[in-house]
Amino acid sequence: MNMNYISDKAHLGNDIKIGRFSIVEDNVVIGDNCLIGNNVVIHEGSIIGDNVRIDDNTVIGKLPMRSVNSIFKDEDKLAPCKISNECLIGAGVIVYAGCGIGEKTLIADLAVVRENVTIGQRTIIGKGATIENFCKVGSNCKIQTNVYVTAYSEIEDYVFIAPCVVTSNDNYAARSKERFKHFKGVTVKKGGRIGAGSVILPGKVINEDGFAAAGSVVTKDVESAKIVAGNPAKCFRDVPEEQLLKNQ
Amino acid sequence: MNMNYISDKAHLGNDIKIGRFSIVEDNVVIGDNCLIGNNVVIHEGSIIGDNVRIDDNTVIGKLPMRSVNSIFKDEDKLAPCKISNECLIGAGVIVYAGCGIGEKTLIADLAVVRENVTIGQRTIIGKGATIENFCKVGSNCKIQTNVYVTAYSEIEDYVFIAPCVVTSNDNYAARSKERFKHFKGVTVKKGGRIGAGSVILPGKVINEDGFAAAGSVVTKDVESAKIVAGNPAKCFRDVPEEQLLKNQ
Amino acid sequence: MNMNYISDKAHLGNDIKIGRFSIVEDNVVIGDNCLIGNNVVIHEGSIIGDNVRIDDNTVIGKLPMRSVNSIFKDEDKLAPCKISNECLIGAGVIVYAGCGIGEKTLIADLAVVRENVTIGQRTIIGKGATIENFCKVGSNCKIQTNVYVTAYSEIEDYVFIAPCVVTSNDNYAARSKERFKHFKGVTVKKGGRIGAGSVILPGKVINEDGFAAAGSVVTKDVESAKIVAGNPAKCFRDVPEEQLLKNQ
Repeated sequence: MNMNYISDKAHLGNDIKIGRFSIVEDNVVIGDNCLIGNNVVIHEGSIIGDNVRIDDNTVIGKLPMRSVNSIFKDEDKLAPCKISNECLIGAGVIVYAGCGIGEKTLIADLAVVRENVTIGQRTIIGKGATIENFCKVGSNCKIQTNVYVTAYSEIEDYVFIAPCVVTSNDNYAARSKERFKHFKGVTVKKGGRIGAGSVILPGKVINEDGFAAAGSVVTKDVESAKIVAGNPAKCFRDVPEEQLLKNQ
Repeated sequence: MNMNYISDKAHLGNDIKIGRFSIVEDNVVIGDNCLIGNNVVIHEGSIIGDNVRIDDNTVIGKLPMRSVNSIFKDEDKLAPCKISNECLIGAGVIVYAGCGIGEKTLIADLAVVRENVTIGQRTIIGKGATIENFCKVGSNCKIQTNVYVTAYSEIEDYVFIAPCVVTSNDNYAARSKERFKHFKGVTVKKGGRIGAGSVILPGKVINEDGFAAAGSVVTKDVESAKIVAGNPAKCFRDVPEEQLLKNQ
Repeated sequence: MNMNYISDKAHLGNDIKIGRFSIVEDNVVIGDNCLIGNNVVIHEGSIIGDNVRIDDNTVIGKLPMRSVNSIFKDEDKLAPCKISNECLIGAGVIVYAGCGIGEKTLIADLAVVRENVTIGQRTIIGKGATIENFCKVGSNCKIQTNVYVTAYSEIEDYVFIAPCVVTSNDNYAARSKERFKHFKGVTVKKGGRIGAGSVILPGKVINEDGFAAAGSVVTKDVESAKIVAGNPAKCFRDVPEEQLLKNQ
C-alpha cells in the first residue's frame, strides 16, 4: 500500500522514491533517481530534474495568495516552478510557482522562495532564509540561515550573506504615494559580502568584493573591496588581499 | 477516494474544497466557499468563516504545550480559534487555540500566532512573523516578515513594522523575582512605524506616527511624529508631513 | 481506520496516541504515554522516551543533506536521534539524527536542531530557534524565539539568550584558506546572558554571569558579571547583585 497520491497525469522518471502521504499533482514532471520525502506537496505543473532530493513536508509550486476569488488568474500567469538537476531541497521548504532554481543548488529547511525568482547554480539558500518575489540570485552564492532578501533585490555571483542579515526596499516605510516610484531592493555585486545580523537600507549597493562587517547598519553604498562597520556603517579599511574573490 | 479525514461532527458549509491528507476534527465549523490545502490540521472546535483560504501544512487551533499531563486542562480554558471571513492563511502557519483573527486579514507562510491573541481586520502578518501570547494587534497593520512581537504587546491600527524587527518584554533578562511585576511588551500607537531590523526594549512606546528608523535600538519612548535612529536611538527629525497617517 | 503508518519493526510502549497521516519508521522506539500529533515523521531508529509530546508536522531524525548519492554513508555514521523522557516538541520542528535531547526539555514550534548536537535537561529552545551542528547546549537554559546558535558553539548551564540573537563563527566571512583553521562558535559560560537582537562575533566568550544588553554587537569577550552594550559593545556597569545566578 503506497499511502500517497500521484496523479496519473504526472510524468515520472526511473528510480524515483516517493514517501508516504506525499502528493504529486497533474502535469508534474520528475526526472530520474529522485528522492522525495513524506508529506511533500508538488503542485500542478512543477518540473523537477534528475537526482533531486526533496525532504519531508516541503511544498513545491505554491500559488501566491491574493483574494480567494482571484488566485486562478495568478495561476495562469506564472511559469511552472522548475527545480534543476541535483538540487537538494530541505524539509518544510516552500518554493512558489514561477521560480527557477539552477543545478546543484541547495535550499535548506524552512526556507521560502517566492514567485518570479531565479537562483543560479551551486548556490546555498540557508535554513529559514526568505527570497522575496522579483529577486535574482546568482551562482555560487551562500545566503545563510534566516537571511531576508527583500523584493526587487539583485545578488550577483559568489556573494556571501551571513546569517540573519536584513535587507529593505522602501525608504518611505509604507507611506506617501511617492514611494511607489522608488521601491528598490539591495544590490550585491560579484563577490560582495555581508556579515551576520547586518541591516541594509533600501536601494543600497555593495560593490564588488565590498564587505559590510557583522552588525553593520548600511546607509550608504559600500565601495568595492572596502570594509564598513558600525551603526551607521563607516568605511574603516580595505578587504585583505587574501580575501578578495580573485585570490580564492 | 478522498484521502483526508473529516470528522462527522464537523459542520461544513457549501462549496468547500479540502486537500489530501488534511484533518478536520470534531466540532470544527467551516463557512462557505473555503479552500483548504493539503496536510492541513484543523483542531477540535476551531471556527473558520466564509471565503477563507488555508494553504498546505498549516495547523489551526494548536493547544499550548505544558507538561504532557496538564494539556487537557489548558484545552478547557481557551476559546476556540476563530478565523473570520475572507482571511488568507499561508502554508506552514501555526495558529493557536484562543486566537481571534479579523476579516480579510492575511497570515503569511510559517507565521506563528499564539493563544490569547486578537488581530483586527485587513492586517497583514508577514512570513515567519511571531505574535506571542496575550498580544493585541489592530486593523490595517502591516507586520512584515520575521517580525517578533513579544508577549503582552499592543499594536494599534495602521501600524507598520518592517521585516525582522525584534521586541522584548523583560528588563531583568530572566533574573530576580522583581521581574515578575514588570513584564511589559511594547506599545505601538496608531500609525506608528518601526524600520527593518530594529530592536525595541521592554515596555517602550512608539507614539502616534512615531518612527524608529531601520537598525535602531530603541531604549526610550519615541515621541509622536518624530523619527529616531541609531544605537541607542536618538531623535533626529520630524516625520515628513506627507508620511503622516492623516495624509495618506 | 488508522490513517497512519507504523512500521511493524517499531517498538511502541503503552498508552501511546499517534495522530493521522503520521509515520513511524523501522526500529523506532517510543516509550509509554506519548502523544504524537498528525503528519509527524519519525525516521528510522529514533528513540523517544516516556511521556513525550510531539506536535503536528514535526520531523524527528532527519538525515543531513549532502549529494543525493552520499546520504546513505552519512546515515551509517550518525547515532539515532534520542529524545528523553518528558520532552515537549512543538509543531513543524525538525530534529536531526545524531542529536541527544535531555529530559524535560521543550523545543518550540519550527525550531531546528541539527546533527551532532547535545542539549541538556529542562532547557527551552524557543520557536524558530536554530541550533547548528556540533553545538553543545547545557541544562536549564532558555534559548528564545528565532535565536541563531552557529556551529561549534558551547552554551553552558543556566544561560539565557533572548529572542533573535545572532551568533557567528567565521571571521574570514567565507574567504581564504586560513579560515578553516579558525572556525569558532561562541561560548556562553554558566549563567551568561545575551539580550534581544544582539550579534556576537566569532569565537567570543560571554563569561559567567556576563550580560550583553539588547542590541549589542559583541566584538570582544564579555567579562564575568559585567554588562556591555552598544555597537561595538562596551562595558558600562556590573550586573546587579540580585541578578547574579547565585542569588536566584
